[in-house]
Amino acid sequence: MTTLGHGKNNSPVTMRDLAKAAGVSVATVSHVVNDKPGARIGDDARRRVKEAAIQLGYRPNALAKTLSQGTSRFIGLVADAIATTPFAGQIIHGAQDEAWKHGYVLLVANTDDNRAAEDEAINMMLEHQVHGILYSSWYHREITVPKAIHQTDTVLVNCFADGSGLPAVVPDEEQGGRTATEELLAAGHRRIAFINTTTPSPAQKGRLAGYRSALEVAGIAFDETLVFPAEPEQEGGYATTPKIIDSKVTAVFCHNDRVAMGLYDGIREHGLRIPDDIAVMGFDNQDVIAAHLRPPLSTVALPHYELGAAGVRLLLGIDDTSGTHPNRIICPPVKRHSI
Amino acid sequence: MTTLGHGKNNSPVTMRDLAKAAGVSVATVSHVVNDKPGARIGDDARRRVKEAAIQLGYRPNALAKTLSQGTSRFIGLVADAIATTPFAGQIIHGAQDEAWKHGYVLLVANTDDNRAAEDEAINMMLEHQVHGILYSSWYHREITVPKAIHQTDTVLVNCFADGSGLPAVVPDEEQGGRTATEELLAAGHRRIAFINTTTPSPAQKGRLAGYRSALEVAGIAFDETLVFPAEPEQEGGYATTPKIIDSKVTAVFCHNDRVAMGLYDGIREHGLRIPDDIAVMGFDNQDVIAAHLRPPLSTVALPHYELGAAGVRLLLGIDDTSGTHPNRIICPPVKRHSI
Repeated sequence: MTTLGHGKNNSPVTMRDLAKAAGVSVATVSHVVNDKPGARIGDDARRRVKEAAIQLGYRPNALAKTLSQGTSRFIGLVADAIATTPFAGQIIHGAQDEAWKHGYVLLVANTDDNRAAEDEAINMMLEHQVHGILYSSWYHREITVPKAIHQTDTVLVNCFADGSGLPAVVPDEEQGGRTATEELLAAGHRRIAFINTTTPSPAQKGRLAGYRSALEVAGIAFDETLVFPAEPEQEGGYATTPKIIDSKVTAVFCHNDRVAMGLYDGIREHGLRIPDDIAVMGFDNQDVIAAHLRPPLSTVALPHYELGAAGVRLLLGIDDTSGTHPNRIICPPVKRHSI
Repeated sequence: MTTLGHGKNNSPVTMRDLAKAAGVSVATVSHVVNDKPGARIGDDARRRVKEAAIQLGYRPNALAKTLSQGTSRFIGLVADAIATTPFAGQIIHGAQDEAWKHGYVLLVANTDDNRAAEDEAINMMLEHQVHGILYSSWYHREITVPKAIHQTDTVLVNCFADGSGLPAVVPDEEQGGRTATEELLAAGHRRIAFINTTTPSPAQKGRLAGYRSALEVAGIAFDETLVFPAEPEQEGGYATTPKIIDSKVTAVFCHNDRVAMGLYDGIREHGLRIPDDIAVMGFDNQDVIAAHLRPPLSTVALPHYELGAAGVRLLLGIDDTSGTHPNRIICPPVKRHSI
């Protein structure tokens, strides 16, 4: 097999090569290639430079352009857990699509939520003169801002830091909890349990507030004995099953899809059917799980793609940062067959 | 709330500022900052420049350095599906850790397997003078190499292109299939089904070859009626359950963890228990699923992190590319409770 031809692109076509081929000065080539406004270049010279560029396979040097213009087309994206959930990937995807739309390129760094790796990532981004940084978390939480991040424009994505003055874009947890509960209410359920996470977080607080507000609007008194704390994963949902069955509810809103998956297992072991005996509503719309449970899980989607895209729009000044703090993104319902 | 201070980093500390503060020439600063060999700079001048750099918060300009040295510290990583599975994230994680170790930074682009987005990504990388490109796929497959990629050094990760001359690093599917089957044999099973994917792929071919070779070594005749084709997801595993039960096997090796998850549902609906009535072995060690099924799933891990890291080592010439083509990475067993 071949070995790598290291240094394959060490002799790129230069502006000098173009100038020679087109019979014009290097300055003329520079004006044409960089589309400089105000430069008076004849149509003929312009055409010859462009033809030479195509013939010789000239590629503009993005780094040189960045240096000469003093502003870069990089946006840094710091992610804490790119490898363990698809959530970070969806944020990156949304950020990249929006960045590219405006001619920017993402520099992505995964930190594993390690402060040293984070500092290294931010320094790397600053050395590459990023236009700004998106600092993201795979789950919605309050963060302590790394000091170095104040050296450039920063937008927090799926996290926030009160008092930092940094704009943030987060999912609307309360609206999501309200929407989830409303879906169950709309199907005729009146006695609805909520399995909430034991982990203090904006999701814990916001989804509970949404559950309560939906019940209130429906004229149903909030009953705190129907709120069950659980570890926010399959094992937590499974362990809660006996209490759910004892509570005589006809429907359960689960803190997330993983909890719902564990509850499915528990409900089946009790010989009950979903949704005939108990309706189940999830939260997250987690890939690999939600659509593939039996029956497919009705849920509310976390808007990770949109969080990434909105973060870029805030950073580039396309969206206004002067609204409510932080900017909340809607969590839409996803209807399947568990209600 | 604050609005973004666009242009915050438009006036960075320059070498001129450093020279003034340290009372030396700009050339001296440049020599100290860039650690140029052969330059005779007095210890005192060197110390003053370094102190001034700390005091003024001077940050070396990585882009200028790249231009002046003619080689970049970027490695491009093209990924086809960063948003839909954690697999791409794991490849990125491994590649980044290895790249950073050697002073390189990853430029990541997600293409959604779209040729136009891919061309744009590769052009962007070439314009940024990447040292080379890792071209990766979220699942192991043969690819058609985009033309532009031949303009720089490239390593294929989790994919290959026979005849392209490009080095590739892929999971060892055959060893993985053999290991999975050996785990079932070691637990005393002799009549073992294999639910294989209906999608033609190196995984389909390799895992079957591994299954056959493990049976052969154990002195068990291959019985093709025990190989069941299925869609490679939960629904496929579930749909295969009746045939599995009719076949009177005591163990099943599933093409992937998603198939195993669907088979779990089917086996439960038939009133059977895992592993007492039927043992189940997965493949992938997929996050969010494998460790959280009831019982937790024994499986074989796809080595995505290691694929990314090995790709970087090949690209940087740290690992030799002259071995077998493509380079195969071991898929290790992960023991849980379904056998």
